[in-house]
Amino acid sequence: MSEHFVTHARFTLEREYPHPPDRVFAAFAEPEAIRAWLLEGEGWDVGSFDMDFRVGGLQTSSFRFRDGPEIHMHTVYQDIVPDERIVYAYSMTVEGERISASLTTVEFRTVDGGTELVLTEQDAFFDGRDGLDIRRSGTDGFLDDLDAWLDAHAGG
Amino acid sequence: MSEHFVTHARFTLEREYPHPPDRVFAAFAEPEAIRAWLLEGEGWDVGSFDMDFRVGGLQTSSFRFRDGPEIHMHTVYQDIVPDERIVYAYSMTVEGERISASLTTVEFRTVDGGTELVLTEQDAFFDGRDGLDIRRSGTDGFLDDLDAWLDAHAGG
Repeated sequence: MSEHFVTHARFTLEREYPHPPDRVFAAFAEPEAIRAWLLEGEGWDVGSFDMDFRVGGLQTSSFRFRDGPEIHMHTVYQDIVPDERIVYAYSMTVEGERISASLTTVEFRTVDGGTELVLTEQDAFFDGRDGLDIRRSGTDGFLDDLDAWLDAHAGG
Repeated sequence: MSEHFVTHARFTLEREYPHPPDRVFAAFAEPEAIRAWLLEGEGWDVGSFDMDFRVGGLQTSSFRFRDGPEIHMHTVYQDIVPDERIVYAYSMTVEGERISASLTTVEFRTVDGGTELVLTEQDAFFDGRDGLDIRRSGTDGFLDDLDAWLDAHAGG
């Protein structure tokens, strides 16, 4: 049997943030913002980060957690509707081995008191190197980090 | 209610081709081959086609069917395992309106007498402009075209 196989999965996370959609959208659209809440958490070391926020543009980064393996992200923006939607495809590589490719849809909706964010991710996990529970849990943690960052920058 | 919404879907197509995996894989990997079976069917007019078959490389094309609207495809290769797997993300634009972004996994498996191809596509359809049935049916037609092309080029 081949060592090569693909596991497909999908998950959805929903959050409400007490900030208007344009502010939550900007946290994904502005390089300084997304670098801060997505990559610069305590214990994380960012090796590189580049971002070209337009359809067809790339976001690439490399980072590691403490003494952990080097992780590389390669993201291509697929669709952008200002203050409403960002769709991107990204692959993740750990110590030079590609572990997944994913299509992520982030929707921003106006609700009473702020923004409802709905993140839907469709994943292809390669050769058993990653899986749904880990990815969903990790992404959920990133949305916590976004929450804290937005509150800390409410005066923006 | 916003005019902007996303519908997520997934489908899988399975085919067997009486040709070895390296030949079926090559039909996706070689620009002349994929242009021939994917884009140059009867009634289709190809306006542009460029392909850089490597991880992170692009395939871009524009084409129309008879007097139909101009369609533009923008594809980024996410993962390639020679003769075994190709994963790509692509967006489709019709007359300047982006209708979808998709993550497609194509797996090539050796079976008695040839190759089993398994195509899994995970879609995000934008604003009701496309849907699962049309996309699955269209992709199924492309796999028919591949079948005919492989048989016609069996001596290759």
